[in-house]
This record gives sequence, structure tokens and C-alpha cells, in this order.
Amino acid sequence: MSGFTPKDPDWENRLRRSFAAQAFMKHLGAHLTHIAPGAADISLSLVPEVTQQHGFFHGGVTASIADSAAGYAGLSLFAPGNGILTTEFKLNLLNPARQDTLVARGRVVKPGRTLTIAKADVFGVGGGGDEVHVATGLFTLMGVDGVTD
Amino acid sequence: MSGFTPKDPDWENRLRRSFAAQAFMKHLGAHLTHIAPGAADISLSLVPEVTQQHGFFHGGVTASIADSAAGYAGLSLFAPGNGILTTEFKLNLLNPARQDTLVARGRVVKPGRTLTIAKADVFGVGGGGDEVHVATGLFTLMGVDGVTD
Amino acid sequence: MSGFTPKDPDWENRLRRSFAAQAFMKHLGAHLTHIAPGAADISLSLVPEVTQQHGFFHGGVTASIADSAAGYAGLSLFAPGNGILTTEFKLNLLNPARQDTLVARGRVVKPGRTLTIAKADVFGVGGGGDEVHVATGLFTLMGVDGVTD
Amino acid sequence: MSGFTPKDPDWENRLRRSFAAQAFMKHLGAHLTHIAPGAADISLSLVPEVTQQHGFFHGGVTASIADSAAGYAGLSLFAPGNGILTTEFKLNLLNPARQDTLVARGRVVKPGRTLTIAKADVFGVGGGGDEVHVATGLFTLMGVDGVTD
Repeated sequence: MSGFTPKDPDWENRLRRSFAAQAFMKHLGAHLTHIAPGAADISLSLVPEVTQQHGFFHGGVTASIADSAAGYAGLSLFAPGNGILTTEFKLNLLNPARQDTLVARGRVVKPGRTLTIAKADVFGVGGGGDEVHVATGLFTLMGVDGVTD
Repeated sequence: MSGFTPKDPDWENRLRRSFAAQAFMKHLGAHLTHIAPGAADISLSLVPEVTQQHGFFHGGVTASIADSAAGYAGLSLFAPGNGILTTEFKLNLLNPARQDTLVARGRVVKPGRTLTIAKADVFGVGGGGDEVHVATGLFTLMGVDGVTD
Repeated sequence: MSGFTPKDPDWENRLRRSFAAQAFMKHLGAHLTHIAPGAADISLSLVPEVTQQHGFFHGGVTASIADSAAGYAGLSLFAPGNGILTTEFKLNLLNPARQDTLVARGRVVKPGRTLTIAKADVFGVGGGGDEVHVATGLFTLMGVDGVTD
Repeated sequence: MSGFTPKDPDWENRLRRSFAAQAFMKHLGAHLTHIAPGAADISLSLVPEVTQQHGFFHGGVTASIADSAAGYAGLSLFAPGNGILTTEFKLNLLNPARQDTLVARGRVVKPGRTLTIAKADVFGVGGGGDEVHVATGLFTLMGVDGVTD
């Protein structure tokens, strides 16, 4: 996996700055827990604010951290001054998301000049460290010139 | 459009009760603004808590209200005791979401015994009432027996 | 619907030439039955060569004419010398496709400089002219400079 | 990967019989080249009949063998008398498909009582055996009681 080489020497700071500026991630209580070239992980805890009517993680929450994880995986490979936009994504919800913690792992599948394709897998992690595969998705990311991300 | 007949005479109360129980929707500041058989609209205002790094609505927020709107559109046609689950969805983000208000309009495309297919279109509404088509998506919803929604 | 204005005065000939050059469409027995700015319809008959194991239209056939219909809907709005590529699509299969004729109706949802989003709805048409909604899908199309389509 | 246990002792014959009955696969010149519990590969050669206007594999062809590969991966785990239906899929086209041979590798991601989720990756294989990742997709498969596949 990987072998990706970032075009922006400052990519790590760039990702952390951009993530910190996503007010919505803070509102969810989400953290950027891992970054590498072509990869980004985001996790958050099960608190009442992120639940649907049965007390599980809302599907939109799962989608939100999956989207940001895939996006930052992509952004890690972008040139300076080339911002990122999710143009579309698809998510399959595989299992109920009711574990203590949700972790979204974004990974670049294919970098490109105009479009970058990434995937994200979301896992629910229980108290004992056991993982349940909660969701899997595909994301199309577009580079936008002249945008600071 | 429509001609759908609800199987649950209490469908309106059911939808409102279920939406009120989605803590995440309250956390977003989202409101269920319209329901009809096979249809549900959800809207929310642009506040800092729902933004990404450029101050626009986060794509995950757009996805979240689209998902709930499509889900409640589907639930309006379900029999009592038949709960709802989004099994997958796909969303295309068409235009930047930076208007005052975001409105997701969920509509059933094809009801079914096991699977119900719905679509959701999301519009950004400016101060003057002008609408921008922000996103369009397709959702697969599954009925789950023995679940109260 | 529409109000789209083609950038290529020769768009009609361009679409018909390009469709005629798609050997696969001929192999399926598919015909381009309607074009308009931002719109293209493709239809084909139920013959054994296009069936799956139960004698219905194969899902891949439904996807193939939906893809070409969406693509030509998009190409109708492209500038001369700007070729077209489907970068991704999603298709929901709504009803069994076992009617006499299958018609895919591709329509542009949002034209763009780099990406154009289109949808396609596929209908099965019986002997009496009755229509069944067989599939609905969303397509992301990309313009490629310097390509003759 | 895998560890899947088929519920139908006759699963191998069942898959081969069903594939042989898909007239469309024969029309494409496609072959079922590998099966295992939760896995199926389908390949075909670049002949004029399967091309689009530039002589590459048509996207619908790529989708067609991906769909069948994902479907047979799923069917390998189904109980006898439980037929299979693709209810929806999403495909990202990653690279031009112009190699000598196209191979779709379908793999089950999550088997289920009602829905089974599978993925398919499609590779273009050149004369020297080098592989290009042409497409990746996600498929939702549904079991249908009382159907012989």
C-alpha cells in the first residue's frame, strides 16, 4: 500500500491546519488520528449528539467522517495551492454502528491530475478493541486551483 | 407525483416522534419542515458549527439531512412495526453550499416489500428566496421487522 | 426542462457519428432514438443475446445503454474538440427488465466546465406501450480536451 | 480474505450452470475464469464488438463483467433455492480500458441474510502480463427465495 509521494513538502501541517478549520469536525467531537501520504484516519466517540433514534451513530455522521478522511487522504498528495472538493461519493452501511468509537480510514485508490479516487472504510471499535466493519465507500475528489485548504 | 398511500394511519406522528428522537438532527439545528406520503423535507441554517474549512456547509452535513429526508420519505409508507435502515446511498455535490439555508427534499422513487428506493435533492436557499441545486442523491432503504421508528 | 444551449453548432452530427462508432452499441442492437440539447435516448429490443439466466435483460445491458444515454446527453453540450469520459456512475435497478423494449433516457442535471452530472432513467416498454421504471442512475462525465468524439 | 463457507454443497456447479445460461456473457465473449467461496473472476478479450468510439472497452462492458463477477461471488455463498439479484451498484472508472484482456474480480465484502455487499475490481492485462487498475465498484445483492440461479 502507498508508495505515494506528496507534492507539497508542507503537507502534514496543511492537513492539520485544514482539519482544525473544519468547525463541523469539532462539533462532532472528531479527531484526525493518523495521516500518511495518501491516507488519513478520523475517529470520534459515541456521544448522544451524534446518534439517530435508536442511539446508534447516525448514518450522516458515519458519512461525514468518511468524507473528511477520504478528502484528507487525497489532499495529502495535492500540490500547494491546489484545494480539494468532494464531487461525489457512495457509501454502503454494512453493520449497525453502536460501538464506543467510530474510526474512518481514508485511502487514495488512484491519484490523478484532475480527479483523485479514494475509498474509506469505517470501523466501530468496542471497549475490548474488537472491530466491526460498519461502512465502506468510494469518493471522487477534484483538485481546485487557487484554493488554500 | 405521489399517489402513495401510507399503511400506518399514525404515520405523521410516527415521523415527527422519530425525527425528534434523532439527537444528531437537533445537534445540527435541523428541522422537519414538510411531510407527505412518500415525501419529507429537512432544513437547517448556515451556522459555524456545520461548516468546513471555507465556511461552507460541510459535505457530511448535506449528506446527513439528505439521508434523513430520504429515510423519512420512505418511513412514511412503512407498516407499523416495520423500522427503517439506510443500506447505502450515493450523493453528487453539484454546487458550493454557502447559502443561508439548506433544504433537503426526500422523495420515494419506488416503494417495495423489502427495499424502498428514494432520492433526495438538496437546495441552498438565499436571503431573496433564490435556490441553488447543491446536491442530488439516491438512497436504498430497508424495512426491518420488529423495530419501532 | 432544458434551456440548454449547445456550444458546438454541429452537435447533432457529432452525436450521431460518435454513436455510430460505438461498435458495442451495434453489438447490443441499440439505437439512438432521440437527441436534444442535454438529452439523449437509446433503446433496444429483448433478444436472447442481451439476457441473463432468467431471460430478462442483463443488468449490464441496462447499465450500458444508460451510460451511453447519459454520456451523449452530456456530449450534446460540449464544445468542439472536447471529448467525453464517464468517470463514475451509480445505478439502482428498480424492477425486473423483461419487457419487449428497453429505453434509456439520459438527461443533464448540471453542466460544468470540468465535470457534467447527468442522470439516466431506464424504462421497459411492453407491447401495449405501458412503461415500467426499470432503473435510475447518476453519472459523472468529464470533458477531455483534444479528443474527437 | 475469505474464510467463507458455502451453504450449498453444489455451489460450484450452480455457478457454472448459471453463468453458462447468461446469454449476454457469451455474446460478450466473457469467461468465468476463477471461482472460490465469496469470489468470482470473469475475463474477456478486446474485440471490436465490445468497444466504444475510440476502440477501448465500452464502460458498459466493464460494468457488465464487474456486475456478473460480483453477483457470482455473492451467489457462491447463497443457500440452495435462494436466487440472486443486483439491486444497485456504483462503479468508478480509473484508467482507460484498452489492454488485450479485461479481468473483473468480484469479492464478497459482507454476506447477509437479506443483502450481501460485494466489490469488484477490474484490471486491464497487457500482452506482457502487466495489470492496469481500470475500475472499482461496490454492489448490493439481494437473495430472492424460490429462484433457481
